[in-house]
Amino acid sequence: MSEKKHSPKQLALFKVHFKNGDISHMADTFRKLHPADQAKLFEELDSKAQLSLLQPLEIEEVADIFDELDDEETLEAAKDLSLPYLAQILDDMDPDEAADLLGDLSAHKMRRALSLMEETSDVLPLLHYPDETAGGRMTTEYLSLDQNTSAKEAIQFLRKSSPPTDIPYYLFVVDEARKLIGVTGLRELVCAEPQDAIAAIVDKDVISILATSDQEQAARLMQHYDLSALPVIDRENTLLGVISHDDILDVMEDEATEDIYRLASVSDTALEPNSALFKQLSGRLPWLLLNTITALFGSWIISNFEDLFIQVAVLAFFQSIVAAQGGNAASQNVAMIVRGLALGEMDTKKIWPVLFRQLAVSLTLGLIIGGLVGVGVGFWQGNLYLGLVLSLALLGNMLVAGVVGTLTPVMLQVLGYDPALASTVLVTALTDSLGFLIFLSLAQAFLPLIQQYI
Amino acid sequence: MSEKKHSPKQLALFKVHFKNGDISHMADTFRKLHPADQAKLFEELDSKAQLSLLQPLEIEEVADIFDELDDEETLEAAKDLSLPYLAQILDDMDPDEAADLLGDLSAHKMRRALSLMEETSDVLPLLHYPDETAGGRMTTEYLSLDQNTSAKEAIQFLRKSSPPTDIPYYLFVVDEARKLIGVTGLRELVCAEPQDAIAAIVDKDVISILATSDQEQAARLMQHYDLSALPVIDRENTLLGVISHDDILDVMEDEATEDIYRLASVSDTALEPNSALFKQLSGRLPWLLLNTITALFGSWIISNFEDLFIQVAVLAFFQSIVAAQGGNAASQNVAMIVRGLALGEMDTKKIWPVLFRQLAVSLTLGLIIGGLVGVGVGFWQGNLYLGLVLSLALLGNMLVAGVVGTLTPVMLQVLGYDPALASTVLVTALTDSLGFLIFLSLAQAFLPLIQQYI
Repeated sequence: MSEKKHSPKQLALFKVHFKNGDISHMADTFRKLHPADQAKLFEELDSKAQLSLLQPLEIEEVADIFDELDDEETLEAAKDLSLPYLAQILDDMDPDEAADLLGDLSAHKMRRALSLMEETSDVLPLLHYPDETAGGRMTTEYLSLDQNTSAKEAIQFLRKSSPPTDIPYYLFVVDEARKLIGVTGLRELVCAEPQDAIAAIVDKDVISILATSDQEQAARLMQHYDLSALPVIDRENTLLGVISHDDILDVMEDEATEDIYRLASVSDTALEPNSALFKQLSGRLPWLLLNTITALFGSWIISNFEDLFIQVAVLAFFQSIVAAQGGNAASQNVAMIVRGLALGEMDTKKIWPVLFRQLAVSLTLGLIIGGLVGVGVGFWQGNLYLGLVLSLALLGNMLVAGVVGTLTPVMLQVLGYDPALASTVLVTALTDSLGFLIFLSLAQAFLPLIQQYI
Repeated sequence: MSEKKHSPKQLALFKVHFKNGDISHMADTFRKLHPADQAKLFEELDSKAQLSLLQPLEIEEVADIFDELDDEETLEAAKDLSLPYLAQILDDMDPDEAADLLGDLSAHKMRRALSLMEETSDVLPLLHYPDETAGGRMTTEYLSLDQNTSAKEAIQFLRKSSPPTDIPYYLFVVDEARKLIGVTGLRELVCAEPQDAIAAIVDKDVISILATSDQEQAARLMQHYDLSALPVIDRENTLLGVISHDDILDVMEDEATEDIYRLASVSDTALEPNSALFKQLSGRLPWLLLNTITALFGSWIISNFEDLFIQVAVLAFFQSIVAAQGGNAASQNVAMIVRGLALGEMDTKKIWPVLFRQLAVSLTLGLIIGGLVGVGVGFWQGNLYLGLVLSLALLGNMLVAGVVGTLTPVMLQVLGYDPALASTVLVTALTDSLGFLIFLSLAQAFLPLIQQYI
């Protein structure tokens, strides 16, 4: 229920003006859009167009847009603004977003911006916490009530304070020292008898999180207990801030992107398909280089079997099948384990039943796929011993894939790393190399039998 | 603010009783837990233990647990219950969860359960919509007000109705025909003058979604506009139900799991690391079998170069590097495009700048990695022409990866399929086969030069 409107018509109109390069009408239409839509359009413009759109807007309106932008976009846009103007915007931004932006500025710029701001008491406490912690996600704009207030007084207080719309509909109850006592809702307040004290309708069994905890833990708590707001406390149970439901959607989205990117060996979570060339290289090249080394190691393993290829060139056709099937099976394992760990459905302490189950799956997959490929290739090449070697190698590499694909992410988690780092590169390096080794060793052992039919 | 408590102590206590097999204390502790925790523990038990835990609980308490369980778990638990008992539980469940469960029962069982239920008017309308649509996610338990009510009357109405806690804090305003007029909040109600008519504080610029729209679209809208509830309407603008913030967290989690699984060639989104063997096979084998066919196609391509291997066996060491690097680069591309499309940051109509950017990235990656590998292998094997062929093949396959990895997910999206189906299997089948073809064709062309140094 923002004052700015969500209007598909205005959005379409803006795009027409934009296409025609009609700056004055563009700015006019832009002002009428919902800040979320403004932010989305804003991101698509170059910095010159961005500046000309911001010019006619009030400070508050600019702050609303900045609140909606991605952290990187905000920083980008802030670079072109004068510090006194930026300080005014920071004063009007949501404290948590302002703190994120301040934290992204250079130390020197941050200090100057803070000195130019009118009100820093709500932002300063937030600067202590890294972006990815509960403290970094919380806002200091929330409503708290003293436990001795009556329901009627509380409603009167709410009427007077006319809080901004994006504050969650929970009211946190604190004592004189701001220790969190419990929570109550606007609904409980409305449904209570007017003379009731807040203490009578407070739910003391409040779920809270330490400011230093990881944001993902906050997301899990809010999802598990269907909370639309989560109070953030320090070790002394002092109420520091609140994380609201829309922040948690962003956390979940970020965490999913991170997992998808890491599993695909992309190391920069902020990378987008049209990011600048240098950014693309820095986010993609490191893993590909690592993969170059592991691939060369695979080549070295194969090179030890050079005599074998001279005698039976046909082996070169099939070594890749063993490696590829192992890699695919391992990727399936990694995806299931990474997701199970991320959603809290899997416990690293209960790994044995999972490993046992996965070995049974790998055995079955290996028998089916090994059997099919072995029979197929055996008849294609008229060489049943070649087929047999291929079957055994596929079975062996499937078992390797099951173990490596299951244990690598679990071990990473136990060691305190992100299990999604068990990406294609790490895990398939093993299934590739071992796949070559198993297949070529078996071929060596069965060489006289294979050669009978060459 | 449920009546059941979130209590880590009780949770720990339950686990001690469970370990000791102390059923009576287990049930006792279980009753005191938060339904979300009850559901989580419940899922870990076998069906016999589940039944013995449910026995001492009231119908309402069982319904609360069923509301929290995953759809599959609910169905599993429902199987063991008598139909009259199940009907009572269904009566007390959230209408959207009850509808999901009913939809999962056999047609015969569903009809019988419906006939045994006391109240089906809130569940029946929900049965029309598939699970994955906005209509399938909405609940019919929400608060709506007539536009002519006064703020004071509305508050009195709220006091009397004492709605359950998980209803979003939005009040939807409708006319006599239940057409959606707008939205107002409990906060606006509290802050308004008591005699004000609702019509005065209604925000007519309400964001809504059609019941037949995809749930992912609902999630995007709620995230973009920071909504904690989204009204669901039909084509005549009649208010049908509401999607609340906790439903949207589930949608986002499901969609992320689906993308991660599809990218890793796991076709069953409900698969977990310890799912039963048959379930694992049905979710993993189909893609691996498809990959068997594409891998055999790769083998066939290589087999056309048999003479080459007889002359230069060393080629067999390096063909896999070209295929592997192409596959990895393509996976990076696919991950970025799939995520960009899922988050609405990419538009399939603006594909050319993205493709152009990705070709520039592929070219640079190909030059760097091709250069390094070419020089390294050239010196290792003392054969600079072999190195040159490898460099060129890597460069060529990187360009293939850039095009295939970018266009495949985009084309799938345009054709109405999930872009994440451009998984390892589909995309790397192409980079593998073309990688072999490019490398071996180049080696054939440079054969006299390479052979000089063998």
